Amino acid sequence: VGASDTPVTYADIAAAAERLAPVLVATPLLSAPTIDALCGARILVKAEMLQRTGSFKVRGAYNRLVQLNADERRRGVVAFSSGNHAQAVAWAARSLAVPAAIVMPKRAPAIKAERTRGYGAEVVLFEGDRVAMEAYARLLAAERQATLVPPFDDPRIIAGQGTLGIEIAAQARAAGATPDVVVVPCSGGGLVGGTAIALRRDLPSAQVYAVEPEGYDDLARSLAAGTRLANAPGAHSICDALLVPSPGELTFAINRRLLAGSLAVADRHAERAMAVLFNHLKIVAEPGGAIALGAVLGGAIDVRGKTVVVVASGGNVDAALFARILGDHSAA
Amino acid sequence: VGASDTPVTYADIAAAAERLAPVLVATPLLSAPTIDALCGARILVKAEMLQRTGSFKVRGAYNRLVQLNADERRRGVVAFSSGNHAQAVAWAARSLAVPAAIVMPKRAPAIKAERTRGYGAEVVLFEGDRVAMEAYARLLAAERQATLVPPFDDPRIIAGQGTLGIEIAAQARAAGATPDVVVVPCSGGGLVGGTAIALRRDLPSAQVYAVEPEGYDDLARSLAAGTRLANAPGAHSICDALLVPSPGELTFAINRRLLAGSLAVADRHAERAMAVLFNHLKIVAEPGGAIALGAVLGGAIDVRGKTVVVVASGGNVDAALFARILGDHSAA
Repeated sequence: VGASDTPVTYADIAAAAERLAPVLVATPLLSAPTIDALCGARILVKAEMLQRTGSFKVRGAYNRLVQLNADERRRGVVAFSSGNHAQAVAWAARSLAVPAAIVMPKRAPAIKAERTRGYGAEVVLFEGDRVAMEAYARLLAAERQATLVPPFDDPRIIAGQGTLGIEIAAQARAAGATPDVVVVPCSGGGLVGGTAIALRRDLPSAQVYAVEPEGYDDLARSLAAGTRLANAPGAHSICDALLVPSPGELTFAINRRLLAGSLAVADRHAERAMAVLFNHLKIVAEPGGAIALGAVLGGAIDVRGKTVVVVASGGNVDAALFARILGDHSAA
Repeated sequence: VGASDTPVTYADIAAAAERLAPVLVATPLLSAPTIDALCGARILVKAEMLQRTGSFKVRGAYNRLVQLNADERRRGVVAFSSGNHAQAVAWAARSLAVPAAIVMPKRAPAIKAERTRGYGAEVVLFEGDRVAMEAYARLLAAERQATLVPPFDDPRIIAGQGTLGIEIAAQARAAGATPDVVVVPCSGGGLVGGTAIALRRDLPSAQVYAVEPEGYDDLARSLAAGTRLANAPGAHSICDALLVPSPGELTFAINRRLLAGSLAVADRHAERAMAVLFNHLKIVAEPGGAIALGAVLGGAIDVRGKTVVVVASGGNVDAALFARILGDHSAA
């Protein structure tokens, strides 16, 4: 397999890692014997909720913004997001003194808009569905001659997210572990795709799986069909960070080539994983952030006796929801 | 000030750090602009709940147990603790294949005994006060010709805890920060004392403060009196990890010489700090683990404009209590 058979190369990711090292957190790879016992496997948790803004999204956002030229920086950026990407772009923009406008759905939790404003971004509340919101963000960017920063379908975003793979491989090696399986939460597929590109070189023996919420398993069905399919309307999931309508174009080109598969997981397993991460690793995961561990705990994949890296991708969850989930899963 | 004016030297701590590096977590030094804004200072949080067993205690426990000779290892160890030290000794004992018996109060939460057993230790439940429990543990150790591993008043325990100071200084340097103040939760004083010894060399410009719960401010009053004083009976605090009756002998000899002071903090500030750490850093602190940040948030010390390292020392808290606190401090 050649180096340029994907829209993002290992060299792109290695270059991103150098850009990110001075500003981001080298999040730890954590483990607990109690979690190993629950899973019948050696589990290493990449604790990405400890990343700036509470999710991995800032890897891609910063890698995109830091490559703007002086003129582009002055004109600013526009992004559309209901959550983690919004905060990530706002954070990266402030770090680089770039003006940022983030289009967010009017119905999004007030705290998310508030935090995005807290990082210094202008928040534009929009009423309408995701497709209309994206179209509006494109118009706004054109109007302002600003750069649109998409959440996943962009080579520099994917390269930034892929830095997670370089870190995982290095940290597993330092821990004396050779992972057989790496399990990654998936919305648009940028994180799992970028990670897979990095691991193909740094940990070629590992199988990389995406994990999606039940009802939002567009990648799993697209992989089976060999072409991009959309989710049926009307599904519900607690994993608000993972509710993308269909795989990205660039990300699907990567993921169909490099992934071992995509696992669909019910909300209750993601919730239980949140309680397990609270009890045994003392970290706060949001539902979508915990779903990869949920896949293992719920038996969506057989990992008995294996060494497994589980990516915990974010921790932006409201206190009331977190408290409710701890109460419902008190035996975790 | 000479190198041997305290019962533990910098060299003891540096040697401990080399012993611990292969087995423990290099816990990150985390920050968030939102916490800086709340405190009016640059705040760096040493996230020690991410340490093995969920608290710093394993640093001292492992440093003690790894120095047992072959004969002592065979005969095993005994410890007495209601909480974090119990789990830490159990974990270290299992890592080194040393038999361990832990004397725990019968009234301690069932989950703590269960976790200690989960690490493979024998748990001996004891009915009676702390003084009686310690006496019983000494008898048990003598009977079995086992080594007693005290929670703080032991040079090798203090040296192990002091490795936190070496890490803090190195990580602050890497972050381009020169801390003015380091704030450390205090029960028997081993963590703050060991840390102060390390920082005297590695970060001599920093003032080191202990933090105690109101009603358990034996160190603050002992420092004022110049001699060890006990707490009055009948006090209550939610900070179950910090309820020691009086300063240790060795630890007080260190702390009276090296600390800038000890701050007494009300439970509500520790609770609010737990909510702040949840919301803005996505980490789980127990009440005693969050009290150093509580001291800053509650104004027990004026840190405006300064750079402050806050040690978050542990995260072993029941889900029900954690959920209650998140509910009570929803504006954090």
